[in-house]
Amino acid sequence: MKCLILAAGRGSRLQSLADSKPLLPLLGVPLIERTIRTATQAGADEFVVVTGHAGERVREFLRELSARLGVPIETLHNREWAECDNGSSVLAAEEVLHAPFLLLMADHLFEPDLIRDLLRAPLPEQGVNLAVDGALENPLVDPRDVTRVQHVAGKIQAIGKGLERFNGYDTGIFHCTPALFGAVREARREGESSLSAALGRLAAQGRAGAVDVSGRFWCDVDDTAALQRAEQALLQRLRGKGGDGPVSRWLNRPLSIRLTRRLVNTGVTPNRISLFSFLLSVIAAVLFMSGHYATLVLGGVLAQIASIIDGCDGELARLKYLQSDYGGWFDAVLDRYADALLLFGLTWYAFSHSPDMGVLFTGFMAIIGSFMLSYTADKYDGLMRQRGGGVLRMGRDVRVFLIFLGALFDQVFATLLIIALLMNLETVRRVVVCRP
Amino acid sequence: MKCLILAAGRGSRLQSLADSKPLLPLLGVPLIERTIRTATQAGADEFVVVTGHAGERVREFLRELSARLGVPIETLHNREWAECDNGSSVLAAEEVLHAPFLLLMADHLFEPDLIRDLLRAPLPEQGVNLAVDGALENPLVDPRDVTRVQHVAGKIQAIGKGLERFNGYDTGIFHCTPALFGAVREARREGESSLSAALGRLAAQGRAGAVDVSGRFWCDVDDTAALQRAEQALLQRLRGKGGDGPVSRWLNRPLSIRLTRRLVNTGVTPNRISLFSFLLSVIAAVLFMSGHYATLVLGGVLAQIASIIDGCDGELARLKYLQSDYGGWFDAVLDRYADALLLFGLTWYAFSHSPDMGVLFTGFMAIIGSFMLSYTADKYDGLMRQRGGGVLRMGRDVRVFLIFLGALFDQVFATLLIIALLMNLETVRRVVVCRP
Repeated sequence: MKCLILAAGRGSRLQSLADSKPLLPLLGVPLIERTIRTATQAGADEFVVVTGHAGERVREFLRELSARLGVPIETLHNREWAECDNGSSVLAAEEVLHAPFLLLMADHLFEPDLIRDLLRAPLPEQGVNLAVDGALENPLVDPRDVTRVQHVAGKIQAIGKGLERFNGYDTGIFHCTPALFGAVREARREGESSLSAALGRLAAQGRAGAVDVSGRFWCDVDDTAALQRAEQALLQRLRGKGGDGPVSRWLNRPLSIRLTRRLVNTGVTPNRISLFSFLLSVIAAVLFMSGHYATLVLGGVLAQIASIIDGCDGELARLKYLQSDYGGWFDAVLDRYADALLLFGLTWYAFSHSPDMGVLFTGFMAIIGSFMLSYTADKYDGLMRQRGGGVLRMGRDVRVFLIFLGALFDQVFATLLIIALLMNLETVRRVVVCRP
Repeated sequence: MKCLILAAGRGSRLQSLADSKPLLPLLGVPLIERTIRTATQAGADEFVVVTGHAGERVREFLRELSARLGVPIETLHNREWAECDNGSSVLAAEEVLHAPFLLLMADHLFEPDLIRDLLRAPLPEQGVNLAVDGALENPLVDPRDVTRVQHVAGKIQAIGKGLERFNGYDTGIFHCTPALFGAVREARREGESSLSAALGRLAAQGRAGAVDVSGRFWCDVDDTAALQRAEQALLQRLRGKGGDGPVSRWLNRPLSIRLTRRLVNTGVTPNRISLFSFLLSVIAAVLFMSGHYATLVLGGVLAQIASIIDGCDGELARLKYLQSDYGGWFDAVLDRYADALLLFGLTWYAFSHSPDMGVLFTGFMAIIGSFMLSYTADKYDGLMRQRGGGVLRMGRDVRVFLIFLGALFDQVFATLLIIALLMNLETVRRVVVCRP
């Protein structure tokens, strides 16, 4: 699937931040790179980008990006970008697009599923499909600036900024047959060179479909307010949808997201963050072992900080398209070591205050129980999802928070006992529940 | 895919063991049940069985089997079974088979991959394909009794027991179009009512293909010697092909296979075996903790016995078609607990003889390292297989054997140290090797 991206406009309302809007970094990644990477995730595998304003710099960036991602990106220059509306940029690509293609704006953010929804809808013969947002209260949309759409039974009736009756917003994301080019030329002959005008023409002939993508994330980055909204939206999307435990949800995640926001503009990699969080846990474990209350508390605080920072690796990876199987695995392996070391530190602390076999055994059971919960998680989650049942979350966030509280209140043995009981009983529960 | 199974013959050479050969149990499972379950694994989903000798008992068994497996099994009776050759049994099913089908003998054992190989080969128009074993030295074949095949370029030239020139054996496993029925009737009119005669007729018209399945497991259970060979072959197939570690391969597996052979005729389930092996390990761990050399040795021996018995659950499951995802997972969870308890027992033993923080830490590292090796195994194996690299085996078999040796020679601390080093270094190696 080829993908045409319009990147010719000046972006005058954002010019105070960057001379070229497509190259404007949002959370560390230029807008056009976000567009291309997200479209790639949704299945696009070849790009045609039409440049205009600051064309040479955009083209240079795209050459580098193409090599970095291993994805072909052809660039075409629209000489008329300054005088004409965006229809002229569409026409610039006519020579290279002979089959249905995706049409995107360089400054629109979206999630891959939006594109997938759009591509699933049948394309009208000799026409186009537009992804339309029916959530008129969508807080990411600037109602004064958005292009409005009126559609009935999947067909666009009217489109334009001034529309009084409308039931959707134009997301700027299209699935087109090459018939679009004829419609643009036709509109142009009659003095209107915008894409919307061409679409209005196709709509009048029943050749413009509307695909409802309400609820999917998208936004148009036009001014500094929109930029801030987009940034906030991307950050809030990092909150796991039900995947986070309670401590992560209410304490760790809000803090780690703030931290991640500061990290996006540095060169720090997710694996470095995993490693750093692990080292903090090691220091916490050593502090536990020294056997004094003061170092115990310090260790507890450090362990909780490490747990918060441990959220940043995944967030940074998602924001900057750095996710990898290996990264997730590396983090999981370090987490297991960190858990075990923290619990061993506590065990040693408790044992040095009351040297009793029971204390050692309890600490040992806390360690093995924590392990078993991680060891059984994949299998259990998969099976429970198959059966449509809910999944009880008692992960690392809860474990480390219990350790933090135990250290704070000097209740180390009780903490070990609680962790040992909770983790092992939950493991036994899983083994029983999963029985065929 | 429908599957026709001939189960009419008397099986006179085995009549001392069972009145009905299809119902003769081989390692706890009747021959015809093995045939049906293996064919199901290879993709057959509907069965037609032609009975003769002891027909009522075979049909009763198949009714129960059909309900138990949830697979449709239709039975037809061949009234002429005593007078005529096996062609008459084929004809008995003519009314119910109108599309290509699989044809099997109730007393032939085979592996699912043999059927898959056969089904992959294109079927000659209006003809049949026969799975032919080109390994003339196959020790499971009785060269005096087998039907011989001469084939050239995938076509059968001649077939029969007395053939002087031949390059393969008839496995008795066919993929047929309904044209087979015509060939059987034709042969019958000329006085030959065997399946081989019909095949010879098809061969003469170039309609009998030969599909080479050399190297695949199959055998024909005709007499007590063949029965024993088949039993041995099934047992030897339990030796993991490269999946077993060195201790398992040379010590545990040979012993566990002998034990499994005794278990097949009892009602013991694989999960019970997993649980029993786990309990032995718990006792061993408790013996370690008592702190005396005598109980240490006893515990070590018990741990090694538990490790041997731990092989039986999987073997029994494979032999009796009792494998399940849950069973494998249940065994793995118990193994992790058993490993940790054994190592904790040793740690306690070592610590009670020299109460030193270093001993505790070493024991702890042995526990965590052992766990990490299992935790990283799936991911690591998958990645290494993708990359085509070899997989280093240092699993439970080696771990428990080291514990056994350590107990025997009263070198508990050294054992813990070796396990801690080996397991953690191997984990680190995996993390490094898998780096993208």
